[in-house]
Amino acid sequence: MPKIVNHDERRRLLAEAAWRIIRREGLEAVSVRNVAKESGMSLGSLRHYFVTQDELLAFSMRLVSERAGERIRSMTFSDAPRCNAELLIGELLPLDEERRAEAEVWLAFVGGSVAASARELKLKVHNELYECFRGLVHYLSEHNLLKKGVDLELESKRLHAMVDGLVVHHILHPEELTPEEMMRLVTYHLDTLLV
Amino acid sequence: MPKIVNHDERRRLLAEAAWRIIRREGLEAVSVRNVAKESGMSLGSLRHYFVTQDELLAFSMRLVSERAGERIRSMTFSDAPRCNAELLIGELLPLDEERRAEAEVWLAFVGGSVAASARELKLKVHNELYECFRGLVHYLSEHNLLKKGVDLELESKRLHAMVDGLVVHHILHPEELTPEEMMRLVTYHLDTLLV
Repeated sequence: MPKIVNHDERRRLLAEAAWRIIRREGLEAVSVRNVAKESGMSLGSLRHYFVTQDELLAFSMRLVSERAGERIRSMTFSDAPRCNAELLIGELLPLDEERRAEAEVWLAFVGGSVAASARELKLKVHNELYECFRGLVHYLSEHNLLKKGVDLELESKRLHAMVDGLVVHHILHPEELTPEEMMRLVTYHLDTLLV
Repeated sequence: MPKIVNHDERRRLLAEAAWRIIRREGLEAVSVRNVAKESGMSLGSLRHYFVTQDELLAFSMRLVSERAGERIRSMTFSDAPRCNAELLIGELLPLDEERRAEAEVWLAFVGGSVAASARELKLKVHNELYECFRGLVHYLSEHNLLKKGVDLELESKRLHAMVDGLVVHHILHPEELTPEEMMRLVTYHLDTLLV
């Protein structure tokens, strides 16, 4: 009888192994070989999930995207729209070690050379994030909180660009653009938008 | 008599060769081997300038940084501060094929894993750009063009983050965030800042 493999379970084990390495030794330490060792799986079995370093990075990116999505879906919002906005934006910024590791994966993935398969995932991640910001700006607008003359589409794009720019700058220069400083900028930005 | 090598001249030849490949075939095509072939230099001679793919990327990044610096230094400014602001920000955005190639090198370099030597160059490029935006915000302030309550430091950081975010988004999704759309966002952003 052929061995029945539970691919979802295997995938979860590999994802956890990859994540432990990223958190413990940094993104550079994540190799196909290291993930095999950490997960106790053979290189042969791993080949069902990724073969090259690029595929492993895409695998890690999918993991980051799922983690962030789950976190956002399980957030508890109050009836104070402005607080909710800060909470949601904060969730997308690398404010702690865990999300900093996620942001590093994102930046490495986005900056990496574009294989056709990776390109699709890049756009997916990008579009999901944009929808998040667009939803937020519309939510603030529906609560009549935006100043007069604010353009919903341009504000969504501007907020998305600013947040991704902050992520890049924090990864580059964490001592200068600290989590507190990022949130100060988010608060400042919301001050300019909201009545 | 030992052969006298003009390193600056060699460096220029290699830079031009690397740049021709980037423009013609994209960043992924730039390998140590391809640069040797394109420049007509031997792999052995090349080793004085870079050995690994990472070093070649750092070499390309230095080139991009020099090119942008030279362009900015040679810009002609008018006596209309707002136009000058748009002109300068536009110079830092990937509005044409040439600057798009530069932005791709930047993103690949920034997203790449951090070797100690690359880290220094990353911070240098980052700080030079920040000084550009800081200088611009102060210039607008000195001409009494900023709205009341505008915080010079936060505005410099916000503008820097927004512009770098736009660069990332354009590289990811050039059909959606077109050059025209980027400049529309810059104009919109300046509208919110200026009296």
